Amino acid sequence: MEEKETGRLEAFSDGVFAVAITLLVLNIKIPGIDMPASQLPGDAELWRKLGEEWPMLAAYVTSFATIGVMWLNHHRLFIHIKRTDTVLMLLNLLLLLTIVFVPVPTALLAEYLVKLDQHAAAIVYSGTFLAMALSFNVLWRYASYHNRLLGKNVDPHAVAAISRQFSFGPVPYIILFGVAWINTPATIILNFALALFFVLPGHLLLKRKSPQSTATETGDGEELSG
Amino acid sequence: MEEKETGRLEAFSDGVFAVAITLLVLNIKIPGIDMPASQLPGDAELWRKLGEEWPMLAAYVTSFATIGVMWLNHHRLFIHIKRTDTVLMLLNLLLLLTIVFVPVPTALLAEYLVKLDQHAAAIVYSGTFLAMALSFNVLWRYASYHNRLLGKNVDPHAVAAISRQFSFGPVPYIILFGVAWINTPATIILNFALALFFVLPGHLLLKRKSPQSTATETGDGEELSG
Amino acid sequence: MEEKETGRLEAFSDGVFAVAITLLVLNIKIPGIDMPASQLPGDAELWRKLGEEWPMLAAYVTSFATIGVMWLNHHRLFIHIKRTDTVLMLLNLLLLLTIVFVPVPTALLAEYLVKLDQHAAAIVYSGTFLAMALSFNVLWRYASYHNRLLGKNVDPHAVAAISRQFSFGPVPYIILFGVAWINTPATIILNFALALFFVLPGHLLLKRKSPQSTATETGDGEELSG
Amino acid sequence: MEEKETGRLEAFSDGVFAVAITLLVLNIKIPGIDMPASQLPGDAELWRKLGEEWPMLAAYVTSFATIGVMWLNHHRLFIHIKRTDTVLMLLNLLLLLTIVFVPVPTALLAEYLVKLDQHAAAIVYSGTFLAMALSFNVLWRYASYHNRLLGKNVDPHAVAAISRQFSFGPVPYIILFGVAWINTPATIILNFALALFFVLPGHLLLKRKSPQSTATETGDGEELSG
Repeated sequence: MEEKETGRLEAFSDGVFAVAITLLVLNIKIPGIDMPASQLPGDAELWRKLGEEWPMLAAYVTSFATIGVMWLNHHRLFIHIKRTDTVLMLLNLLLLLTIVFVPVPTALLAEYLVKLDQHAAAIVYSGTFLAMALSFNVLWRYASYHNRLLGKNVDPHAVAAISRQFSFGPVPYIILFGVAWINTPATIILNFALALFFVLPGHLLLKRKSPQSTATETGDGEELSG
Repeated sequence: MEEKETGRLEAFSDGVFAVAITLLVLNIKIPGIDMPASQLPGDAELWRKLGEEWPMLAAYVTSFATIGVMWLNHHRLFIHIKRTDTVLMLLNLLLLLTIVFVPVPTALLAEYLVKLDQHAAAIVYSGTFLAMALSFNVLWRYASYHNRLLGKNVDPHAVAAISRQFSFGPVPYIILFGVAWINTPATIILNFALALFFVLPGHLLLKRKSPQSTATETGDGEELSG
Repeated sequence: MEEKETGRLEAFSDGVFAVAITLLVLNIKIPGIDMPASQLPGDAELWRKLGEEWPMLAAYVTSFATIGVMWLNHHRLFIHIKRTDTVLMLLNLLLLLTIVFVPVPTALLAEYLVKLDQHAAAIVYSGTFLAMALSFNVLWRYASYHNRLLGKNVDPHAVAAISRQFSFGPVPYIILFGVAWINTPATIILNFALALFFVLPGHLLLKRKSPQSTATETGDGEELSG
Repeated sequence: MEEKETGRLEAFSDGVFAVAITLLVLNIKIPGIDMPASQLPGDAELWRKLGEEWPMLAAYVTSFATIGVMWLNHHRLFIHIKRTDTVLMLLNLLLLLTIVFVPVPTALLAEYLVKLDQHAAAIVYSGTFLAMALSFNVLWRYASYHNRLLGKNVDPHAVAAISRQFSFGPVPYIILFGVAWINTPATIILNFALALFFVLPGHLLLKRKSPQSTATETGDGEELSG
């Protein structure tokens, strides 16, 4: 049985993801929290003030979804990466640096979404995604090059599925970085769709193409279902 | 021996729970923290100012208790869930999204508890609980459907006990969401009682009905008690 | 080989300890952080302003030391506690509630330490330690009662050493709670000394009384020392 | 097979590292976040305001890199440290105390970097690194003294490589502490170079001198590369 060397790297990364994913909830302000009870607003006024919090609520949900999907990606890569070296740990730190930064451009974009003729926020947002995509790409290429840090009994279909997706490299993110200078809503939707693409289709492709190899990985939970 | 695939999902979730459960302690302000030493209030004034912090203290304790109970629920489900897939991880993220949000409506409710004729805060609070209950329900139904992601040697009594509780589904939470429009204190008490119901009675029911199956699970710690 | 059931409880607790232990560093302000570069103070003024931060620095160090020692205590108990039940998890949550609260009275005490004739801060501080001690006591008594949740091959000497220390119960903390109404510096020193007492002497007592039983626990690292 | 006793110490440390590494991202302010939508600045103004955030951005990146490198160092030591005792846990707490403090002097230094004739910030920064280096040194010397807490089958080459690096002790950091009184940019560059020295050359030295002993540690991932 091959021992997994990446335990602490994953535990540390999980901690960083966990802190980053909760950061934007701190931006949601409680209306009237600094007022004495006698000056608290009535229900109508409170609903209005809560409504004004929607950009921060949208930023929280978006940032949570983005970082959550990145965690899924990280998890997916480290199912196959079993060993570590100093370079991998430094590349992982670079990736975490971009992920912890995500709440900043997300909050910025949420704040400036009302100004559709402005593009600074979308450019910063898109640039962060580009940096994140580059970090993921370099990390995976380093770890999977000649199976350098992958497990000995790694599923070659699963690895190939990931590598195939990563073979597009940062090209779509470079295109999206260009879109950010022109159209803000398209930037958001396409960035998020692209993030999902790196999690989902790989699994689906994998399942369709090699059902027998995934069967061993996911086990068989049907024995009690009659 | 069946390997548990949910290690990282649980570690990441534990991190998110840990951050969320401490958030509201940040709202408790130290009276005079921004004052030079010469202007610090005397004891009588300090006690009064500390007394004014009680809504934030109550919010901290309530939010801690709520998220703590949710952690217990999460723990209880993942004793039986041994495998993961992308859908489970996305459903778990959805659940964590609602749990990290809990401190916001809790602080809001604590702030507006002095205004019993207002209901906005209770409605937001109750709505969050409804979303949380729905997330738990969907996650469990997905994982336990035909034992999809449960362990091979899962205790069918324990699984049945959980499913029986979840069979009520979000109905009581929908009713409570209605109560929130009418009576705020009843909302708080009933929401919390309901959260406890999803942790406690399952265990108790289980223990009474199948003592031999739980004996293997909890081991026998009496051998030294003579 | 007996499986340890407390893995997730410990991981979650570690996360909560980790967040709580860092909270007070947020209170240390960077002088001039909200000023444009041209208005930044000179070195003499900066040293003076940094000097004014000393109560927050002292609070950070004290709170870090306190929570760190509590983590040691928690670690020490859970070396022996191998199984969990709902009651233990609820008692553990109660303990974590008091631990996350520690930064609040610590910062309060640091702020009001210049006013030695005032006792409100010392009373709140001492009360928190009393609650923490009570939580630890109840948790250990519950878990160790007739070895309810301890490991099967638990070292009876180690367990007895802990129980002997806990047999004093919260009595010294009740006395200290009284001292807080009279003398603030004595409160701080005695509270901290007491916290250390619950970590250190147990180990020392243990080592002196049963060298052969600890030898198996700590292994033998001398084989290369010649 | 020797059981590793340091699991919880590492998990707790990872949590503390994870929180500390993200702290400075909280200092990056979103321009206009407290303004109603109608008063948000235009793109030109927004770029200018974002540009003014650069010291906080630099502080975030520097602090992230520093704490990340310290995590690597911690990880590197605890590959060999397999057992714990109370002294080790207290020394580890001391180390974590200095690491959680890192964001404070880093933000201070970033803020005052525009004033190159001032040295207070550089002195505080350099002093923190000195304290951190001392903590690492004491921890390693305590754990590795006569292999006190190292694993039984520890690789003596790897241990010697670390000890050789640590044999310089805090001397270079004391020299750098002196440099801080004279030249700020040199302080930053040299402190960081030194931190990297404690991670990287050890590995490189090790790899060059004992290829066969590292081969067993890092396994052989080339079997699929043809």
